[in-house]
Amino acid sequence: MEYTIRKGELKDAEAIFALIQELAVFEKEPHAVEVTVEDIQLDGFGDQPKFEVFVAEQNDEILGMALFYYRYSTWKGKTIHLEDLIVRKRARGKGIGRLLYNEVLTYAHEQKLRRVEWAVLDWNTPAVEFYQNSGAEVYDDWRVVQMNAAQLKKYIDSI
Amino acid sequence: MEYTIRKGELKDAEAIFALIQELAVFEKEPHAVEVTVEDIQLDGFGDQPKFEVFVAEQNDEILGMALFYYRYSTWKGKTIHLEDLIVRKRARGKGIGRLLYNEVLTYAHEQKLRRVEWAVLDWNTPAVEFYQNSGAEVYDDWRVVQMNAAQLKKYIDSI
Repeated sequence: MEYTIRKGELKDAEAIFALIQELAVFEKEPHAVEVTVEDIQLDGFGDQPKFEVFVAEQNDEILGMALFYYRYSTWKGKTIHLEDLIVRKRARGKGIGRLLYNEVLTYAHEQKLRRVEWAVLDWNTPAVEFYQNSGAEVYDDWRVVQMNAAQLKKYIDSI
Repeated sequence: MEYTIRKGELKDAEAIFALIQELAVFEKEPHAVEVTVEDIQLDGFGDQPKFEVFVAEQNDEILGMALFYYRYSTWKGKTIHLEDLIVRKRARGKGIGRLLYNEVLTYAHEQKLRRVEWAVLDWNTPAVEFYQNSGAEVYDDWRVVQMNAAQLKKYIDSI
């Protein structure tokens, strides 16, 4: 079976949104998605794109995506952050995820970036092993910290 | 004692670089900094800034900084990532870090962002407790994954 890997376009916004939702369910946070299809259209394909995306397509259907954006490391300079790598459930096990992963890494390598980074849930053993087998480093000593809008408001009100 | 908190400018690039180096030493990675003063000048204060920074100043001397940039969450939209919060060793314990932290959080709140995020080393207990006491969530189940330039080249060569 053949898949086309290409840059995502405005017309893909609904498919991208569906994949985001599917990943949120997999990550046990089905209600966490506050972004809308309109946000994806504007933020990904407007005047000032906030992310880029590669999609895997077969017969005009989007089966997976790798969504990423640039970050800045004060040690390494410009980096790519792979935000979401997701393949539709019924299309898994066919190597589509690896094709998308390879595309992002090749893209970073071509730009001579010193780092590509992302996050993985520790209980997602297949993903952790896939990344380690590709030569990536999984760090145990860093913790992700977040403040959401409600926590932010509460803190701001207290200072 | 009074401190001025202001947006960093081109003239601050050397002081910003010195703080980056100081943080790398603290994080036990003294040789990890590949970024140069020229990179800071260009990447922070050129035509297309890749980061923003608040600095704490006293008597024309930079005593600390909060360096951040924007990321994109497919759940929450545009977010701020606090990359480095650092106060010069001899100026610690005076509340300068909190002033810088407050400035970034207030800036995010004013922009109505749904998330501010950053990373902390798990052995840096004072930092972990400071963040938790401010209402931030420290996640145990996410792991940071990175591929550096050498790992990237090795993987690309293998595919």
